[in-house]
Amino acid sequence: MKQLGTRPLSIRVTDPFWTKYFQVVKDVMLPFQWDILHDRASITIESEREDVNIPTEKSHVIENFKIAAGQKDGNHYGWLFQDSDLYKWIEAAANSYHLKPDGRLLLMMDQCVDLIEAAQDEDGYLSTFYQIEAPELKFRRLFQSHELYCAGHLIEAAVAYAKATGSHRLLDVAERFVTCIESSFGPEEGKINGADGHQEIELALVHWYEYTGDERYLSLSHYFLQIRGQDPDFYEKQWKENQARGLETGPAPIINLVYHQAHKPVYEQTEAQGHAVRLVYMAQAMAGTARHVGDEKLLAAAEALWHNIVEKRMYVTGGIGSTVRGEAFTFDYDLPTDLMYCETCAAIGLLNFTHELQQNENKVAYAEVMERILYNSMISGMSLDGKHFFYVNPLEVDPEASQKNPDKSHVKATRPSWFGCACCPPNLARTIPALHRYLYQENEEQNILYINQWVDSNYSSKEMKMTQKHDWNAQVSTFIIHNSKRRIFLRIPYWLEDVVVKVNGQEIEREITEGYLELNAVSAEVVIECSYQIPILKWQAHPNVKSSYGKVAFQRGPFIYTAEEADNGKDLHLFRVTGEAQVEPLTDPAFGTVTSLVVPAEKRRKTQIALYQLHQAPAFEPATLRLIPYYCWANREPGEMRVWLEDCEG
Amino acid sequence: MKQLGTRPLSIRVTDPFWTKYFQVVKDVMLPFQWDILHDRASITIESEREDVNIPTEKSHVIENFKIAAGQKDGNHYGWLFQDSDLYKWIEAAANSYHLKPDGRLLLMMDQCVDLIEAAQDEDGYLSTFYQIEAPELKFRRLFQSHELYCAGHLIEAAVAYAKATGSHRLLDVAERFVTCIESSFGPEEGKINGADGHQEIELALVHWYEYTGDERYLSLSHYFLQIRGQDPDFYEKQWKENQARGLETGPAPIINLVYHQAHKPVYEQTEAQGHAVRLVYMAQAMAGTARHVGDEKLLAAAEALWHNIVEKRMYVTGGIGSTVRGEAFTFDYDLPTDLMYCETCAAIGLLNFTHELQQNENKVAYAEVMERILYNSMISGMSLDGKHFFYVNPLEVDPEASQKNPDKSHVKATRPSWFGCACCPPNLARTIPALHRYLYQENEEQNILYINQWVDSNYSSKEMKMTQKHDWNAQVSTFIIHNSKRRIFLRIPYWLEDVVVKVNGQEIEREITEGYLELNAVSAEVVIECSYQIPILKWQAHPNVKSSYGKVAFQRGPFIYTAEEADNGKDLHLFRVTGEAQVEPLTDPAFGTVTSLVVPAEKRRKTQIALYQLHQAPAFEPATLRLIPYYCWANREPGEMRVWLEDCEG
Repeated sequence: MKQLGTRPLSIRVTDPFWTKYFQVVKDVMLPFQWDILHDRASITIESEREDVNIPTEKSHVIENFKIAAGQKDGNHYGWLFQDSDLYKWIEAAANSYHLKPDGRLLLMMDQCVDLIEAAQDEDGYLSTFYQIEAPELKFRRLFQSHELYCAGHLIEAAVAYAKATGSHRLLDVAERFVTCIESSFGPEEGKINGADGHQEIELALVHWYEYTGDERYLSLSHYFLQIRGQDPDFYEKQWKENQARGLETGPAPIINLVYHQAHKPVYEQTEAQGHAVRLVYMAQAMAGTARHVGDEKLLAAAEALWHNIVEKRMYVTGGIGSTVRGEAFTFDYDLPTDLMYCETCAAIGLLNFTHELQQNENKVAYAEVMERILYNSMISGMSLDGKHFFYVNPLEVDPEASQKNPDKSHVKATRPSWFGCACCPPNLARTIPALHRYLYQENEEQNILYINQWVDSNYSSKEMKMTQKHDWNAQVSTFIIHNSKRRIFLRIPYWLEDVVVKVNGQEIEREITEGYLELNAVSAEVVIECSYQIPILKWQAHPNVKSSYGKVAFQRGPFIYTAEEADNGKDLHLFRVTGEAQVEPLTDPAFGTVTSLVVPAEKRRKTQIALYQLHQAPAFEPATLRLIPYYCWANREPGEMRVWLEDCEG
Repeated sequence: MKQLGTRPLSIRVTDPFWTKYFQVVKDVMLPFQWDILHDRASITIESEREDVNIPTEKSHVIENFKIAAGQKDGNHYGWLFQDSDLYKWIEAAANSYHLKPDGRLLLMMDQCVDLIEAAQDEDGYLSTFYQIEAPELKFRRLFQSHELYCAGHLIEAAVAYAKATGSHRLLDVAERFVTCIESSFGPEEGKINGADGHQEIELALVHWYEYTGDERYLSLSHYFLQIRGQDPDFYEKQWKENQARGLETGPAPIINLVYHQAHKPVYEQTEAQGHAVRLVYMAQAMAGTARHVGDEKLLAAAEALWHNIVEKRMYVTGGIGSTVRGEAFTFDYDLPTDLMYCETCAAIGLLNFTHELQQNENKVAYAEVMERILYNSMISGMSLDGKHFFYVNPLEVDPEASQKNPDKSHVKATRPSWFGCACCPPNLARTIPALHRYLYQENEEQNILYINQWVDSNYSSKEMKMTQKHDWNAQVSTFIIHNSKRRIFLRIPYWLEDVVVKVNGQEIEREITEGYLELNAVSAEVVIECSYQIPILKWQAHPNVKSSYGKVAFQRGPFIYTAEEADNGKDLHLFRVTGEAQVEPLTDPAFGTVTSLVVPAEKRRKTQIALYQLHQAPAFEPATLRLIPYYCWANREPGEMRVWLEDCEG
């Protein structure tokens, strides 16, 4: 493989909101997670839901690699996919390093690479569980093995590491593994003709192709997508073959093909079904592979999935997954607010899937969904201190219910430090420092630069330079463009109003087409200044959404707001909104100063004693509700939380 | 044992509403269930919830007994407690036979008794699973074995069979089994000092004592109640002892002691926790045993449990159990209407528990709860044709959610014919023909007869004769009392208004004390005539009940009402009640003619297309809701159903 070297970043995020997060990733999350992976953090690992089989004793990730490498004796501990925690940590470290090189981080990453190299089998195979515990079952339990899933995360880490450091050492490991995979999988006689139960390698192969241009990776991704669901009995046959060879005892597993999106060819999957993370990882790969190979049918399926999700199966926070059982989608408009899953990883997956579609065709709807996820369901997955994480991001919490009703055992009122299945924390750590990816979109053919996200940043390419800077308090945003050879399409967010645009001091007629203002900024330097109001938006859900019927949810800027017990006392369900909300700064040691919303409301008097009594017109007393940005919730004492609030108008 | 002979019934129910059910039990349910137990019914057995371990291939109950009896070869099939299906069938047949002797039914029961006699071990032991599959584990897995649970149902069947037929053959079987149990259990060295994981034998022993007066049974019940939860490690120790003896391999089971109500002594259990059926079966035994042995502390605990249930954990239908996970109670006021369990058996258990308390001290609250269960959550457990049954009795159903959201897989929109765990259908069959038990309460000490339920019936004892007859259409009820040596306390139901009472044609001042009108009816014949209005009651739940906040539920007479899609179309959540309901007869082939309620309402217009849009005052169109009695629901085409309806006043 030719050494492609580092890829200098063409976009630098300078936004104080986000650079604080970058800092938390670098200074807190990476060392904290490093200690956990090495089993030397003093933390309690929690189950993400009530399930006695979840391994919560330790992480053991580094130990697993050491045992596989022959450096230690012992057994594998943790999930089959425990390796991916390390790969995601490396990717996170590489992304962070890419923003700002750091010798210590490089050393840590290189230690990991040494270990991974050492653990890899001669033939390129690498999956510590199977290497340590069940080598005879390598690639033979695909419905649950996660070997290719882990390979995918290895590839993503390797690409990030190469881009950031210029070193191809980890890509070489990945290359050996993929060679091993290529020799084992395919339609040819004697090979395994099927795909992993958990999609991931497909999207990683697309990234690898994008970095190297090597079409082998693209072909392999295309193959895995095309073979998926072609033979719905594939997994069962594999198990039976193992049984015939004496490799499996015990009862045959019940394989839910919909859970794995393996019930029919992906081309025919136009409804988001099954495990939410798997679905969006698959859909991301579908969109990316389709774009590069020109498979229009595949792209159409991906687009159909996206529309189904965002138009019928997405929470107002951008969260997805309506049930803990199978961590899955359910059906159109079924968005229970107190039972949902809304896994942090699923939000990140939808972000990346959407981004993949946007690279094919820029649309304001994509930018809006990405923004909704970034500012809400993604960062709600972590505490502001960077040491506590949500798996599930609920829209409504009653701590007593979480504790005492087992249907809600997964709906935690406080963020644990780590999980038995620790997919979410490193997923946040790798995604946050990659924020720059999601802000702009270039269309070379049409010579357009889309400014999709209003995030302080510098953009530089050979065609132009640009700086955007926002003063949200003053309600002024400035975009300074140098030497642009591009047409600029500036997204005017739907959450602004009374937008006045000045170009070099001159107010212009603003004509917004499909969410974008077109600017012909070809002169040497153009200063675009936007002034605006930031209104408080009050959402209502489609009447088919039973959980949110008659309720409203507030938004200001890109932030969805929520009510917490810390500000409002208990019984949030007894409030109903009566008037227009106002903005008020709120200062708290937990989150510094944020813009809160003060909402006129009334609160039902609780005079009833009996469990049931004859109906009387309810009595209300005047009240106010104070709302904070959703991402800030659960950073103070545990209590009730509620995004959708009763409204007096229904 | 001395032969105590049949017990002629002193109460004869003549009520057309209930005699129709008696007929269904006798003509339909008993033969239908007989065929199922013999594996010759053409039906599909369903899982009561999504769980691949539920045995749904066949019933195999008779086969299990035949195999245990050595009359056939083969393995046991079904749950550990499959035997109880037969015992409950016998009890149902005996109760039905008690109402009206029938040669064919006697023959069928006697066949069963022959088979059970043949299956019993020499030493009295009887539990076909352990006899066939694991004799070395007899009484050694008490947390899950259900051996004493089955013994309890055997006793209940035997007592019912003896009372109805005069034959003690089945009691002799029970006696041998109980002798075996007495020699195995107790505080003495070498005996097992603990109780069954599923309570039932305790309450059965009380019934046996009441029939025979033999205090041995009472002592054994008292022992099992007293030992429960005394040593929370009992079950685990038993398992470890088995393991040490090589009788258990596999991983140690996770035993949830709260589920079994074995986490602390029953005397200290004042909050309804854990598996709902177990709890109420236990509480019934506590109340009964306490009454007979004079254990006031035990009675106080039972009463505390009852108050906790009916004042904080009971649905408006009388159903109990808020979660499918553990089929359990959760916490005060946690009564979700679309996720609940409300198992038919739990309703029956609460009925019997309440009845037990009422025998200790007659209270109107007990009569009201029993009535609520009888007319609502109990009979909703069966279809009007007697061939389909609910395990779960929901307050709200959306068939699409039941099908597509696995959190609701237990909330069925149509009644299956039978279940993998078939506890509910024969429980209904045995309880319905025992209705007479719940109608009156005698207090010999105070020389009072309480008329608790307004059900057409004849009552006769050596102290008096009485006939009650109701003409609900004419709104007149007549109570004719002959030669009463008792003071009569007539319950005036809270669901009547403008009640005028005439004694021998003379209107009397009606002074109602704690729900009862006292009548001194000592003359030769007294005719009491009550005329009244039957208003439509509109309930609201305590504001802590989040699921029912702002909603209302309707009742008329003892019947809770519900809205079904068959009458109202889809989207029941979009209606809101606006005015006073009216009564209107409704005729349908599914249920003949019932009193329906027509409720003025408005229905939200569905103009919104987007999943989320900015809030607009909702637009409503005038509508009416037609409600039918809750017990009638799901007898027509499957559709939405909803008891708690939005109200315009909130």
